Amino acid sequence: MADTKLRIGILGASGYSGGELVRLLLGHAGVEIVLLTADRKAGKHVGEIFPHLAGQGLPFLIALDEVEWSGLDLDIVFCALPHGTTQEIVAGLLHATGHGLVDELVVEERGDLIAALKSDVRVFDLSADFRLDDVATYAEWYGHAHLAPDLQTEATYGLSEFARDRIRASRLISCPGCYPTAALLPLLPLVEAGQVDASDIVIDSKSGVTGAGRAAKEEMLFGEVAEGIHVYGIARHRHAPEIEQELTRAAGHAVTVSFTPHLMPMNRGILSTVYVRLVNGATAGDLRATLLSRYADEPFVAVVPEGLAPSTRHVRGSNHCLIGVFEDRVAGRAILVSVLDNLIKGAAGQEVQNMNIACGLPETQGLGQLPLFP
Amino acid sequence: MADTKLRIGILGASGYSGGELVRLLLGHAGVEIVLLTADRKAGKHVGEIFPHLAGQGLPFLIALDEVEWSGLDLDIVFCALPHGTTQEIVAGLLHATGHGLVDELVVEERGDLIAALKSDVRVFDLSADFRLDDVATYAEWYGHAHLAPDLQTEATYGLSEFARDRIRASRLISCPGCYPTAALLPLLPLVEAGQVDASDIVIDSKSGVTGAGRAAKEEMLFGEVAEGIHVYGIARHRHAPEIEQELTRAAGHAVTVSFTPHLMPMNRGILSTVYVRLVNGATAGDLRATLLSRYADEPFVAVVPEGLAPSTRHVRGSNHCLIGVFEDRVAGRAILVSVLDNLIKGAAGQEVQNMNIACGLPETQGLGQLPLFP
Amino acid sequence: MADTKLRIGILGASGYSGGELVRLLLGHAGVEIVLLTADRKAGKHVGEIFPHLAGQGLPFLIALDEVEWSGLDLDIVFCALPHGTTQEIVAGLLHATGHGLVDELVVEERGDLIAALKSDVRVFDLSADFRLDDVATYAEWYGHAHLAPDLQTEATYGLSEFARDRIRASRLISCPGCYPTAALLPLLPLVEAGQVDASDIVIDSKSGVTGAGRAAKEEMLFGEVAEGIHVYGIARHRHAPEIEQELTRAAGHAVTVSFTPHLMPMNRGILSTVYVRLVNGATAGDLRATLLSRYADEPFVAVVPEGLAPSTRHVRGSNHCLIGVFEDRVAGRAILVSVLDNLIKGAAGQEVQNMNIACGLPETQGLGQLPLFP
Amino acid sequence: MADTKLRIGILGASGYSGGELVRLLLGHAGVEIVLLTADRKAGKHVGEIFPHLAGQGLPFLIALDEVEWSGLDLDIVFCALPHGTTQEIVAGLLHATGHGLVDELVVEERGDLIAALKSDVRVFDLSADFRLDDVATYAEWYGHAHLAPDLQTEATYGLSEFARDRIRASRLISCPGCYPTAALLPLLPLVEAGQVDASDIVIDSKSGVTGAGRAAKEEMLFGEVAEGIHVYGIARHRHAPEIEQELTRAAGHAVTVSFTPHLMPMNRGILSTVYVRLVNGATAGDLRATLLSRYADEPFVAVVPEGLAPSTRHVRGSNHCLIGVFEDRVAGRAILVSVLDNLIKGAAGQEVQNMNIACGLPETQGLGQLPLFP
Repeated sequence: MADTKLRIGILGASGYSGGELVRLLLGHAGVEIVLLTADRKAGKHVGEIFPHLAGQGLPFLIALDEVEWSGLDLDIVFCALPHGTTQEIVAGLLHATGHGLVDELVVEERGDLIAALKSDVRVFDLSADFRLDDVATYAEWYGHAHLAPDLQTEATYGLSEFARDRIRASRLISCPGCYPTAALLPLLPLVEAGQVDASDIVIDSKSGVTGAGRAAKEEMLFGEVAEGIHVYGIARHRHAPEIEQELTRAAGHAVTVSFTPHLMPMNRGILSTVYVRLVNGATAGDLRATLLSRYADEPFVAVVPEGLAPSTRHVRGSNHCLIGVFEDRVAGRAILVSVLDNLIKGAAGQEVQNMNIACGLPETQGLGQLPLFP
Repeated sequence: MADTKLRIGILGASGYSGGELVRLLLGHAGVEIVLLTADRKAGKHVGEIFPHLAGQGLPFLIALDEVEWSGLDLDIVFCALPHGTTQEIVAGLLHATGHGLVDELVVEERGDLIAALKSDVRVFDLSADFRLDDVATYAEWYGHAHLAPDLQTEATYGLSEFARDRIRASRLISCPGCYPTAALLPLLPLVEAGQVDASDIVIDSKSGVTGAGRAAKEEMLFGEVAEGIHVYGIARHRHAPEIEQELTRAAGHAVTVSFTPHLMPMNRGILSTVYVRLVNGATAGDLRATLLSRYADEPFVAVVPEGLAPSTRHVRGSNHCLIGVFEDRVAGRAILVSVLDNLIKGAAGQEVQNMNIACGLPETQGLGQLPLFP
Repeated sequence: MADTKLRIGILGASGYSGGELVRLLLGHAGVEIVLLTADRKAGKHVGEIFPHLAGQGLPFLIALDEVEWSGLDLDIVFCALPHGTTQEIVAGLLHATGHGLVDELVVEERGDLIAALKSDVRVFDLSADFRLDDVATYAEWYGHAHLAPDLQTEATYGLSEFARDRIRASRLISCPGCYPTAALLPLLPLVEAGQVDASDIVIDSKSGVTGAGRAAKEEMLFGEVAEGIHVYGIARHRHAPEIEQELTRAAGHAVTVSFTPHLMPMNRGILSTVYVRLVNGATAGDLRATLLSRYADEPFVAVVPEGLAPSTRHVRGSNHCLIGVFEDRVAGRAILVSVLDNLIKGAAGQEVQNMNIACGLPETQGLGQLPLFP
Repeated sequence: MADTKLRIGILGASGYSGGELVRLLLGHAGVEIVLLTADRKAGKHVGEIFPHLAGQGLPFLIALDEVEWSGLDLDIVFCALPHGTTQEIVAGLLHATGHGLVDELVVEERGDLIAALKSDVRVFDLSADFRLDDVATYAEWYGHAHLAPDLQTEATYGLSEFARDRIRASRLISCPGCYPTAALLPLLPLVEAGQVDASDIVIDSKSGVTGAGRAAKEEMLFGEVAEGIHVYGIARHRHAPEIEQELTRAAGHAVTVSFTPHLMPMNRGILSTVYVRLVNGATAGDLRATLLSRYADEPFVAVVPEGLAPSTRHVRGSNHCLIGVFEDRVAGRAILVSVLDNLIKGAAGQEVQNMNIACGLPETQGLGQLPLFP
């Protein structure tokens, strides 16, 4: 039955998200990794850059430009490339020939690629390149024009629990950012239910360092991060427009949120504390009921029992998101707390979940790991 | 000139705040430590429980009940005892004979103490026992009647920068909690100035572990804290009424706040992110101007330059509090961020500062240490 | 086929090793957990003490004395009880009626237990109670007479890779300590091969905190452990006699080692640096060859490629042990480095491996998790 | 009296050692910082790169090539430059005109410098460029010929407690490495006393990350360091020849040591565990007596009481070195443990101590900070 396994390529396999993808897919019986690219680490074996994944029979890392697409016979491509470099690549992967800036590039430079890839290849992208529906918003936040605007219209914002049908129908699934996933899972059902005021939402998020990737930057050195916490990107973090896009969709009117990320001295995990104003007579208990009902059958999202407070250490290493609901002591307000592992439910795990959905596999396949505590 | 040094006793010297007091006072040329008590560790030398303070010629630790008060000739007593045990002790220290529950205790059991202490001894208390003006509020939050209600009327809430005159006039100075200090320093000037809506304040605080003390509790083990963050005491943390008491005083009307503490995997530091709604036409720039003006001459409080974000690691080991002011992307809102070392400006350092104020010493004496980074 | 699953009881399920056992066994298709005991946390659900294991359909925790053994029909009992309390329990579990101190206890107090348990129940013990063959050595190091000396003669020291036959034949398998496992895996083959001088071995070990268990002790608080390292138990750590017992067996003569443990600010992992003197003309290359050959077919032990240095972070969360071999710059000496996860290969994982061996299951079943990095 | 302060320049002020120098010297009443250089961060204020040092009236950072030496009137230059770039600079600073490769450089390019500097300027170098007496050994370990061999003959290896006379007489004091300081302080007195076998020494060292500097390298990211430990540079770390140079001097014959460094998840601190063989009838007690006697009058080195084990957290932030002495359970062996703060006694603090010695100031001036715990 080996020949029925989905053939997987991972572009950008040497970062933290790429490493998690490899780890998860090695434990997934329905797939086979046949391509790993990494430009700066081309020529190395996975065991050199991820010693914890040594000895698993993986292909060597090659540079993206050196890939011989012909014969790879890929069913699935995961893109874990840096933001801003993905649009052109994905356009090539998907034979995009629309009216964007990449048209000529695609035609001229990626001809072999187009010829080699299956027509039904699916792309799961972990970058931010295809998360914003509105290419003008993209340009505003990312500082350059979108390179594949036509393709953007095809892209699905893959918050798994809210996009299953679209994911099944799409050949380009964009993984939500880690902060948006943590914020949207508690908020979307409540905004949809009209229980909270979408115009008065404060999202205070605390993240471990791996969300910033594996690039060597002074501010991410152990010496700069350990034994401290700091705030960053206040009122201008690129995950804010994603959160607002989805809340706007749910609310039916334009939503702007206060969103403040903090960097914590830990490797994995996001905890978001969300302050909301209750409307339409809703109580904190009503919010809890809405969330319990909404997620009752979800394998990866759970509301913790009353009185317990979610901790990132209870989801570390898993695809779980836990949500707590609390009555605020300020009348008419409530507090939501969500936790997840930013590299899994906030990145690689959610894309594997999306792959399972898209390809008709059991949604939990390859994602059964319980959290690792402590 | 040695005989002109203030003679200091520290009650409860074996915890983290007590250790910091000892450390700071060892570097203070105007004082001499003559008494250290610690019940569970009585009989030990400081070097056994705080090896970093060995070799400094300190007295041995003795049990509180074993103290021979006569002859100690104390000028100053610092209380770093657990919450709830301090009221009776302080009443005894201060000859309190009011109408509280401790009257008889004081008369009968503390007679020697009363006789032995100077009539002008001052008490600086680091516990929560004398922080709340209203003894009914105390009883509500701490679960038992206040044991020294008359003495409470004498106590000064010692947020140094806002209480100098009262500190000088008082013989009982209560140190604000670490969270309240971090929240009030950015908020008080703005509430006083009427620039923010006191009824719409969200305070999201992140603290290192030493704020929870040195008691052996499972939930404070390294294995339970490292590599994770969790929320606790949502809407029911005992520091909320302190914050509200002082904001109410500043606002002139009753204030209730959303206050949510989080436990972080670090030893020292609190970062508070405060979300406010602007009123009376104020802008974020106005808030910055107010804070810059208010703290221009303060040695320990500073507003960081625009664009920089405060980090706890830049105040670690110092008595500094840094404040940042940011425009929110939600119209009409602003975000304040404060950082301090919970054991210093949030506890021992602030009380040394208060002692300096009360005793007419230079306010910065013994508090000159620059932060230790990294 | 559900009725063919091995029925498992875990005694002492609320500590870190117990939690890992639960986690690993939940991922093991051949077993079913039917009993969880925990004295101090009796009556609680696993989800309260290990929120990461909530929602898995596990039984409630009960006190050991409250267990109704009849009807449990246990095939396997894992003991993760504190040292010193296990001998009596295990004697009861195994109907031991030898000449030890527990005889009467067993006969009188454990009659129901004896009647209720299957005659072929197997016990896998994670404590130190049955690790030392010589009960006099036990008494010397543990401060009291062995309570079940006859049973000790039946116990197997379960270093999986060196004891498979004995494990299969035994009904009482004692899991080696975490430090001994890390020391013996690199050393045993070399001592057996006569390539290193067994009388000149220095073992310098560094461990994460979970090896010390989950008991609330001041010295294990985050504040006492983070941002520092200290040495402890120099020349008197209880794992030394275990290491010496097995090296003595391999060398054929009495062996004493220098063994020094250190406590590190991390949750999981042991790294042992072992300094050896080469004999019989052996080189560091010969040592490498011996280890490569010895572990070529082992699923959980590997020698890292020349030039790479093992790191605990590359085994975290897995049952792996990695070994490095290095030529020392002092002529005639070599350095070995081993790493493992103290809670898995150093405890729960090794006992699951032993259970698989003993019960004829695939040795790697339930132990397939790749390390979690970062 | 301000004009009597020593005028200080710090070259390479933006790294961790440079930052510590600035911090310590700001607390030193006898000096004034008048020059700070940093090439990559030229033009910035210290407050931008070290926010904890903001507001202290320090000069802006300038590039080394942009310094206007004339008028600075420097008494002291501290070099905290990267290894390998210092020899030429120091040669210029000291008018060196010997027979090394830098002669022409000095004459041609550094003419202004030579003219501008006082003839009696002293240089304190924190790099490794002048630590090895033998320029051939330097070339072997550092991969290039020494650029200032004549100047090397003038350099003093500034292990403060062992080189006071030489330090006073020298204009170029080279600060020992952090590992060598931690190893030599316990070993030198014992080797000098002939109590340990200098040919059988194992030094197992564990260091925090700041010893590796502030350069942005992938392997020093928080994600690569936290929650793990690894060994590196086995048998080939550049601090080994320094240790051997000084032990050879003390022993009177060539000494080679086993030296193995490990990287720990903490910011500051080195703990070295040193395994020695006793000779000439010495016991562990004799070693303790020798060290107690040797360091009885030293302000910064202490032997901890019997039974206590040194911890890095008890020296953090101070210039202290603590040493423990333990009997090994292997007959004829003993174990020494030393701890220090690698950035202070292992770098900046030791050089300030050396400056005090060289310039006739009280040796402890500016170094009185007690350790910061926790």
